[in-house]
Amino acid sequence: LELAQSLLAGNRRALARGITIAETGGAPAHELLAAIYASTGRAHIIGVTGAPGAGKSTLVNSLALHWRRAGKTIGIIAVDPSSPFSGGAILGDRIRMQPLGGDPGIFIRSMASRGRLGGIARATGDAIALLDAAGFEIVLIETVGAGQSEVEIAAAAQTTLVIEVPGMGDDVQSIKAGILEIADIFVVNKADRDGADGLISQLRAMLRLGGPPPNGWEPPIIPAVAMRDQGTAELASAIERHRTHLHASGQQAARDRERASREFQLIIQEAALERLHARYAGAAWEALVDQIAAREIDPYTAAAQLLEPEVSRK
Amino acid sequence: LELAQSLLAGNRRALARGITIAETGGAPAHELLAAIYASTGRAHIIGVTGAPGAGKSTLVNSLALHWRRAGKTIGIIAVDPSSPFSGGAILGDRIRMQPLGGDPGIFIRSMASRGRLGGIARATGDAIALLDAAGFEIVLIETVGAGQSEVEIAAAAQTTLVIEVPGMGDDVQSIKAGILEIADIFVVNKADRDGADGLISQLRAMLRLGGPPPNGWEPPIIPAVAMRDQGTAELASAIERHRTHLHASGQQAARDRERASREFQLIIQEAALERLHARYAGAAWEALVDQIAAREIDPYTAAAQLLEPEVSRK
Repeated sequence: LELAQSLLAGNRRALARGITIAETGGAPAHELLAAIYASTGRAHIIGVTGAPGAGKSTLVNSLALHWRRAGKTIGIIAVDPSSPFSGGAILGDRIRMQPLGGDPGIFIRSMASRGRLGGIARATGDAIALLDAAGFEIVLIETVGAGQSEVEIAAAAQTTLVIEVPGMGDDVQSIKAGILEIADIFVVNKADRDGADGLISQLRAMLRLGGPPPNGWEPPIIPAVAMRDQGTAELASAIERHRTHLHASGQQAARDRERASREFQLIIQEAALERLHARYAGAAWEALVDQIAAREIDPYTAAAQLLEPEVSRK
Repeated sequence: LELAQSLLAGNRRALARGITIAETGGAPAHELLAAIYASTGRAHIIGVTGAPGAGKSTLVNSLALHWRRAGKTIGIIAVDPSSPFSGGAILGDRIRMQPLGGDPGIFIRSMASRGRLGGIARATGDAIALLDAAGFEIVLIETVGAGQSEVEIAAAAQTTLVIEVPGMGDDVQSIKAGILEIADIFVVNKADRDGADGLISQLRAMLRLGGPPPNGWEPPIIPAVAMRDQGTAELASAIERHRTHLHASGQQAARDRERASREFQLIIQEAALERLHARYAGAAWEALVDQIAAREIDPYTAAAQLLEPEVSRK
């Protein structure tokens, strides 16, 4: 593929088009990813998650500038899974990121689901692979915190940053239990605010409650004021330590395999649905949905009818 | 099925076991759902979403008590998509819900994904169907806000409540764009706090910006102080008005069909993966994942290899 060649050569326009193709999905995405996949596996993939208003974009901004000064190249993907409806939810974030525009060592892209089930997770995985293949040394994925998206980010990233801020809602509730398991590094942003020390102690206590970390990595808690670029260097060095730990402990390989397994499953699910859609296009499919809605057939039996001659034929 | 019979007869233990079966998935879930599906379609399904700390549980609690006083039966499902890791993230919520325990007109269940991709959305749809079939007149689904989970809730519910509270983070950011499209009713909870009026005006302005509602329903904004049971009656009556609107406008049927279509797709995706898993169990599957992780093959080509003889055979 010509597009794959330009993308591998570092052509930005090819990369942008490639990500659009990945978002759209289907056969063109499959071909493109197949063509570049062997060139992936070099980037360090960092997930950044936290509640709205936690300062994710500002933090990503200052990290990116820090690494640019050290000569590294950075790809940034902003994921907003809530935008199948709106398509424009992260406009505010992108505007604040403008200072990074025009630098060829940085590539920024907002992604939104095209409304397919699970499509955004698959498309984000593909976009990471494309940035990686295009030679970006660091890939940052920024996502709105809470719920499935955090879990997806943790599954896609090698190092996951969880950003908390003092004074947002009831602390015990806002530090959700699941978060402890996905955070490789905690950032307490807006650490100049009241309650920062309390939040840090609370996080520390929760980590202690969890006992010794099963993988030998104790998540550090980094105070930061991203707006004033405080804590950026400490955070960057914690990320570097985590990366070293992943390699030294063999966890890098384990995480890579998990990511491969997950991406494989996402792709199979989407591909199976696409193939069935293509095969039972139009009237037959819609007639089944009508029957389900009218409760003349249940969706499990309907699914089995579609799948039976195909997937389960022995 | 005996279990289906007891469940349809309103046996609570059968219902509890049924939901566990739905969570686990696989053939037993398929059979159970097939057996009860014709008895669904009577409950009014209400989604409740909002950020951590917005007071969702308290609000659900007071709504449930309000309806109980009117003699209605209520099923409550609390979904926490972030707990595949923890399994226990919503303990705090459940403790606060205790006052409802022991009332046979109320059934409360927390659900967590068992780690399957998309599994929680499918299992939640199944649990709604089970509560509906068991005769609960109102089914409330409570979910942590932000991201994909909100969208999923909106897709599963007939009436979606979005809870906002004054003073949480930057307002413009915390009222995410996608939220406007999924909210049938806004609740401004903790309306006795500073900033409540500002939040209400902001919401009103955002709604006005969106122009006249395409479906003829202008989402009301209900101030509430759920902790002191203020606004509950107004909220309940807004929900009732929305339900009437859905029926009168024909949107109820359209939403039902959308839900059926979505559930069908979720089930197909899960079933296709399960069948392929069962077929290529163990070594062959793992060997493919190893090859993908080693980048000897890309996941798209690997998926096509698995699916080719099955799904796409003409």
